[in-house]
Amino acid sequence: MELKNDWLPILLQCKDNVRKHVCPLLKTQKEPQPDLGTGAGGDKMKLVDLAAEKAIVEVLLQHALSFTLVSEESGIREYGNRPKSCYITIDPIDGTTNLIRGLPFFCSSIAISNKPQLSDVHSGMVTDLFHGTTYTAVKDRGAFRDKAKISTSTVTSLSEAVVGLDLNTYKAKQIALQLSDLIQETKHIRHFGANALELCFVAEGLTDAFVDIRGKLRTTDVAAGFLVLKEAGGTISTPEGKPVEAELDPKNTLTFVASGNSQIHKEILSRIKPK
Amino acid sequence: MELKNDWLPILLQCKDNVRKHVCPLLKTQKEPQPDLGTGAGGDKMKLVDLAAEKAIVEVLLQHALSFTLVSEESGIREYGNRPKSCYITIDPIDGTTNLIRGLPFFCSSIAISNKPQLSDVHSGMVTDLFHGTTYTAVKDRGAFRDKAKISTSTVTSLSEAVVGLDLNTYKAKQIALQLSDLIQETKHIRHFGANALELCFVAEGLTDAFVDIRGKLRTTDVAAGFLVLKEAGGTISTPEGKPVEAELDPKNTLTFVASGNSQIHKEILSRIKPK
Repeated sequence: MELKNDWLPILLQCKDNVRKHVCPLLKTQKEPQPDLGTGAGGDKMKLVDLAAEKAIVEVLLQHALSFTLVSEESGIREYGNRPKSCYITIDPIDGTTNLIRGLPFFCSSIAISNKPQLSDVHSGMVTDLFHGTTYTAVKDRGAFRDKAKISTSTVTSLSEAVVGLDLNTYKAKQIALQLSDLIQETKHIRHFGANALELCFVAEGLTDAFVDIRGKLRTTDVAAGFLVLKEAGGTISTPEGKPVEAELDPKNTLTFVASGNSQIHKEILSRIKPK
Repeated sequence: MELKNDWLPILLQCKDNVRKHVCPLLKTQKEPQPDLGTGAGGDKMKLVDLAAEKAIVEVLLQHALSFTLVSEESGIREYGNRPKSCYITIDPIDGTTNLIRGLPFFCSSIAISNKPQLSDVHSGMVTDLFHGTTYTAVKDRGAFRDKAKISTSTVTSLSEAVVGLDLNTYKAKQIALQLSDLIQETKHIRHFGANALELCFVAEGLTDAFVDIRGKLRTTDVAAGFLVLKEAGGTISTPEGKPVEAELDPKNTLTFVASGNSQIHKEILSRIKPK
């Protein structure tokens, strides 16, 4: 079985072009690169992020598409004469620190929607640039890792679970306090450092949940990963149990709990203390 | 430049044999395997751990060696007629949970010493079974990743650092409290879930430190990784700044801070609160 829609061939071409331009940079990248300013999302912009964005836009323009690009790197830009007809939300490189240090977890993420709303994303792709695997999803048609359909785990108990947790914030003390019951009761905590890819790990059932209540993660980081996870059978909500909704904008941030199934989701929510 | 001593060819043969026996199991291992009892170190023993141990012992016996095996899986066993002349400390699979779930971080670890003491280890190997890279070290002769000499990072500031942190314990609340300043001030926290491999990441300069103050990690987990890190230029101590020393025994556990350099080591120690 293979997932097909009009956007998938374009997304896969974007992936190929990102790999073509980014992979040659990797071999010479053990040392940190010069910063090139601050991306639209607030991160330090790196050579490799820009190369990845350029590679994606290049493919989109080859198809003579008109769209509004919502990018973690360059912000919001309109292309062609009907830019409001299509929104393409990208994080050219998620896990730039890993990439620069040589840690094998970083990805590129593209989400397509008709409106600039998280809930409106209908096609998405997250590609693991180190291991060469690609996650895709189309609304109501399932999620795939390369050509294989994927589904989330059935683990429902924290005492068996592997849970991803992002603690990287200047508010870590407060966050750690809010999460202390969850940390204590979860058998295996992980953090690989590329959040979009960690959402796909939940989608594929490699982990059971991913929790990010820092309020730092941007809509550009999760737009594609959320669709992949939802289409694989996962459950996503705010830490308070409400639907996660946001305008797609590199400046918009959110908090969320993303789980493999509704039962472990409930277990996790019940252990997160309010601020 | 290539590292050579009498033990390295044997260690590399062990690695090849582990890969030969373990890698075929990986493809069929998305679902958790049946437990086979509890290993000597207290972990649930898995089919794959046993296969890896068997593969290592098979190679050692082919060389007609006499030794005492100190294994995370089967405990302490004597082989040949001069077993006290050589101690071989192994963790056949570190990161069994990752392996079983399909997360690409797990390794096999072997350390050689004349006495059953951590400080006496003179040759060590940690092999990343997913990515196929192997770290080796011989006392006073440096550390290598495959055939390339490796050295630790020169990052000295926590605001730039990538630090591995293991919070997986029923005492997580207490540990998180002790580490709250460190977590708050460290730019990038990671946990990949295979501690021996994470020590090698510090050795190679992919991360800047690895901190495990849980008191759960065993001597069998770190015997080889500590030598790799020390030979790459790293600094290791207890959280109180004392030398880490222990008898090599699968039941012995320890706490430690392992850093890329003495300056960041000092920064980390100064932020860990006493119990």
